[in-house]
Amino acid sequence: MTRKLVSAGVALALGAGFAAAAFAQAKPDVLVKQRQSAMVLIGKYFGPMGGMLKGVVPFDAKVVERNAGYLQVLAQMPWDGFTEATKGEKSRTLPAAFSDPAKFKQAQDQFQSAVGALVAASKTGDEAKIKGAIGDVGKTCGGCHDNFREK
Amino acid sequence: MTRKLVSAGVALALGAGFAAAAFAQAKPDVLVKQRQSAMVLIGKYFGPMGGMLKGVVPFDAKVVERNAGYLQVLAQMPWDGFTEATKGEKSRTLPAAFSDPAKFKQAQDQFQSAVGALVAASKTGDEAKIKGAIGDVGKTCGGCHDNFREK
Repeated sequence: MTRKLVSAGVALALGAGFAAAAFAQAKPDVLVKQRQSAMVLIGKYFGPMGGMLKGVVPFDAKVVERNAGYLQVLAQMPWDGFTEATKGEKSRTLPAAFSDPAKFKQAQDQFQSAVGALVAASKTGDEAKIKGAIGDVGKTCGGCHDNFREK
Repeated sequence: MTRKLVSAGVALALGAGFAAAAFAQAKPDVLVKQRQSAMVLIGKYFGPMGGMLKGVVPFDAKVVERNAGYLQVLAQMPWDGFTEATKGEKSRTLPAAFSDPAKFKQAQDQFQSAVGALVAASKTGDEAKIKGAIGDVGKTCGGCHDNFREK
């Protein structure tokens, strides 16, 4: 297949959203959408684990292990969307995310670190340990939201 | 820490979106938001690779390897959001996604398979091979969108 044909195939495959990300610095509204999308998926995969901790979802070690692995990847994704250029966009992000980047970065690191510990715990099969690690992740979610997201 | 304290911490950490996912079958509008979020992130990480193929973004093997790894995880995420319950929700999904689940599943598998091949190619450092694999992923995006997403 020639390069030209490959390029044509990809051009066809690319919708407006793809194109914005591919061919220019993503626009502020796209950055906000992307970072919010990462948060939505973090919620999708953390949610059932929070439910297990509360006892309203049956504990399932396999689901925790899978979701923890997903979270480890998703936990990399929101942060490059919080650029200065997005300060004027509609979102629940508080000004502190931009005015205190060191503290914001620390909160991100704490979340990633807690997720890493959950991934490790999820491989032990030890329910008490796993639930402790789920709780620790939840606290880092809440800690960051308290400081950097509107109520 | 007692279980009660852990649960309280997690309850604080859980916003409305988390709660919906955790404590009940996610509602149709939430499922749509979650599957669209996965697509947004697939676009975020595929976009630059499409740009490299077109020559409008400088080729960067490290970015391809990272993004391919992200895509391999993200490629797992949209599909459980396409439930019958979401048929009435506003989205660009065509009825065929629900009326021809076998063909839709096949398109998902082709995408995942092409992403797997891209992950493998991305570790070779062979630019021509990597670009071929990027093109193959793009074709599976486009093939699925042609059949299952509104123009």
